[in-house]
Amino acid sequence: MPQLPDVEIMTIGDELLYGQVIDTNSAFMGQELAKIGLRVRQISSVSDRADEIVAALDQARQRAQVVLITGGLGPTKDDLTKHVLARYFGSELVLHEPTLAHVEDIFRRFKRPMLDVNRQQALVPANCEVVFNAVGTAPGMWFEDQGTVFVSMPGVPHEMKYLMTEGVLPRLQQRFQVKPIEHIVVQTVGLGESFLAEQIADWEAALPANFKLAYLPYLGGVRLRLTGSDDGQPHLRQRMEALLPELRTRLGEHLFAEGEIKLEEAVGQLLLARGLTLGTAESCTGGLLAHKITSIPGSSAYFRGSIVAYHNDIKTRELGVLPATLAAFGAVSEETVREMAEGARIRLGTDVALATSGIAGPDGGTPDKPVGTICIAYADARGTVSRKFTFNRGRQLNVEYTVTMALNLLRQNLPATE
Amino acid sequence: MPQLPDVEIMTIGDELLYGQVIDTNSAFMGQELAKIGLRVRQISSVSDRADEIVAALDQARQRAQVVLITGGLGPTKDDLTKHVLARYFGSELVLHEPTLAHVEDIFRRFKRPMLDVNRQQALVPANCEVVFNAVGTAPGMWFEDQGTVFVSMPGVPHEMKYLMTEGVLPRLQQRFQVKPIEHIVVQTVGLGESFLAEQIADWEAALPANFKLAYLPYLGGVRLRLTGSDDGQPHLRQRMEALLPELRTRLGEHLFAEGEIKLEEAVGQLLLARGLTLGTAESCTGGLLAHKITSIPGSSAYFRGSIVAYHNDIKTRELGVLPATLAAFGAVSEETVREMAEGARIRLGTDVALATSGIAGPDGGTPDKPVGTICIAYADARGTVSRKFTFNRGRQLNVEYTVTMALNLLRQNLPATE
Repeated sequence: MPQLPDVEIMTIGDELLYGQVIDTNSAFMGQELAKIGLRVRQISSVSDRADEIVAALDQARQRAQVVLITGGLGPTKDDLTKHVLARYFGSELVLHEPTLAHVEDIFRRFKRPMLDVNRQQALVPANCEVVFNAVGTAPGMWFEDQGTVFVSMPGVPHEMKYLMTEGVLPRLQQRFQVKPIEHIVVQTVGLGESFLAEQIADWEAALPANFKLAYLPYLGGVRLRLTGSDDGQPHLRQRMEALLPELRTRLGEHLFAEGEIKLEEAVGQLLLARGLTLGTAESCTGGLLAHKITSIPGSSAYFRGSIVAYHNDIKTRELGVLPATLAAFGAVSEETVREMAEGARIRLGTDVALATSGIAGPDGGTPDKPVGTICIAYADARGTVSRKFTFNRGRQLNVEYTVTMALNLLRQNLPATE
Repeated sequence: MPQLPDVEIMTIGDELLYGQVIDTNSAFMGQELAKIGLRVRQISSVSDRADEIVAALDQARQRAQVVLITGGLGPTKDDLTKHVLARYFGSELVLHEPTLAHVEDIFRRFKRPMLDVNRQQALVPANCEVVFNAVGTAPGMWFEDQGTVFVSMPGVPHEMKYLMTEGVLPRLQQRFQVKPIEHIVVQTVGLGESFLAEQIADWEAALPANFKLAYLPYLGGVRLRLTGSDDGQPHLRQRMEALLPELRTRLGEHLFAEGEIKLEEAVGQLLLARGLTLGTAESCTGGLLAHKITSIPGSSAYFRGSIVAYHNDIKTRELGVLPATLAAFGAVSEETVREMAEGARIRLGTDVALATSGIAGPDGGTPDKPVGTICIAYADARGTVSRKFTFNRGRQLNVEYTVTMALNLLRQNLPATE
């Protein structure tokens, strides 16, 4: 069995060094490579200068047996990766007919005139193997040179993702006889990483040596990824799945989904399955709760609308919050947020409703109610539940955390059937 | 005059290579270094392994005269940058009393028990100069070794930003006698990069050799950054400012602000200055318009609320859109969105109102109204204006673009005085 290669990711472009663009490609590639069990040894971002690209290639091949390159394949004059690679591998650019046909087809479909620079996208170094790019005009290029694999991809994220998923990862698995790896993702919410770890410590400790558990925290919860690598025994995936019932029991109500799915999507599926409609009333979240819910395609099937009641007048007029409640308890109180949820349910004509009110900061805090004081409520035909908590990590994060907690409150309280 | 050094940015952490964390620190550092005229030669992300950090340090000093390192300074066992650096520079860790006092002070303030690992944060290599970290417990460390400067900073973004801004950049300017550079940022909206470039081509061409203009595009507009570097003549900034009146004329109504300020913030300042209140009615933007507006601290002074009318019932019931309008023109029409804006203004009791309606996709398009068909409207006491356009770059971007266009419509139509 050949040893698994280390991988170097090389991203090319002055815009990365100037900080005009944040390199998100590397993180995607790192994640996908980890999933098939390949280790990234280093990520290097280099300029558009030919001599510096060549120097970086020389160094990368000292460190890694696979070098994945993105950027510098566009039609403009700054993009010279292709020319540099042809020279680096002692080759020359030749026309790749299938790529030309593909580029022509794209221009025909969009009814755009094809310029000479577009035609040049079909030129590739003679000694590379083309990795077909169905979603763009710049082809991927696979080189093998003295035992090292070099792959060049465009830097446009959705094109890079297509090439990685459809072309590069499968070829790497085959080329290096990478043993199958299986992943199971379990989504949790409402429990921090260390508490979660405590809750499943002995379950995790008892995992076989070829099973690994990764904690992937996000604001408000943790994704768990169980990875099983080949141990020569059959039925790898089934053996992993056999461990899940116990994990589910341990996670209890913190587990909200299995697989790659967001909380707002899971909540939407619950609403759909139960035939319930949702409305929201938002103060501190200022529309972000509705935005998260509506970011899911098809959400119009269960989401009817939101009343963002930033001003107290709107809370009374549009949501029916009693002036006496506001006067006695203030806008940021469980009493007010309960009336907001109940009002939203009635005004928006929905089965269930969520409401938020809090002090997002940076100003507006008092000794009684410091910045980060948050109230949320959920209402349905059976009644209303509310929660109060403090979370202060700056305005933006406070609001994002509130949205997660509100969606979780809905998930926990949704009636099983209507 | 010494030559300006090249800079290498080195980010340390397995989480970067696994893609669990996107490296945003490098982009910030690249931007700030560019602003003082220093070039980043390469960005390298490396693992938490001591031998690989050392190998990367050896290579970085071949390429650059300044190596800025982030990550690996926390209190946990994985964070070993400090130990590696001490060994690399043939030094040993010693207690830095001012840092210890600072760490103790932080724990006292937060009333947390101080553990031994926290005390160890005050250990630094004997041969470094400490760069004070007022916003965290891990100090910055400045080394000079055979003419190369190495600076180590924590990877926590707000701590790194503090250290860069307050400590590292000023010291680099002094150490390398970096000549002053001046920047003027001009914000535009509503015109693409190439059209903008055309409009100011001859103005740009006539710039003195030491003045450079950078186009920094975002979804819906372009930031322009004029950079002036020292040419030995006095009054650099004044000479740059003297060019602005002509630029302002060329940009016309596309210019919305000067300086580092977002469109939603500029719009908020206009509303504040004119003493006007704003409400919104949102269909396709689903709350994002209100969220952007309320992401600005202090927005409660002018923003009263939003009615997110995702379902048509809400459009009629809460915003007073006529059923006949919906029936005749559909929800995505200038007619409907005008009534939404007018309804929001009345229902929310505001001086002005914005409304959005569109087909965000991926589904819901028709031959007449394909995905990406967007209508926006602005209403005030004088009347209502609306726009219709097509923008189809996927659900999320369609919605973001709509928000920008709506804010711009408000900016263009806001009455000078009420």
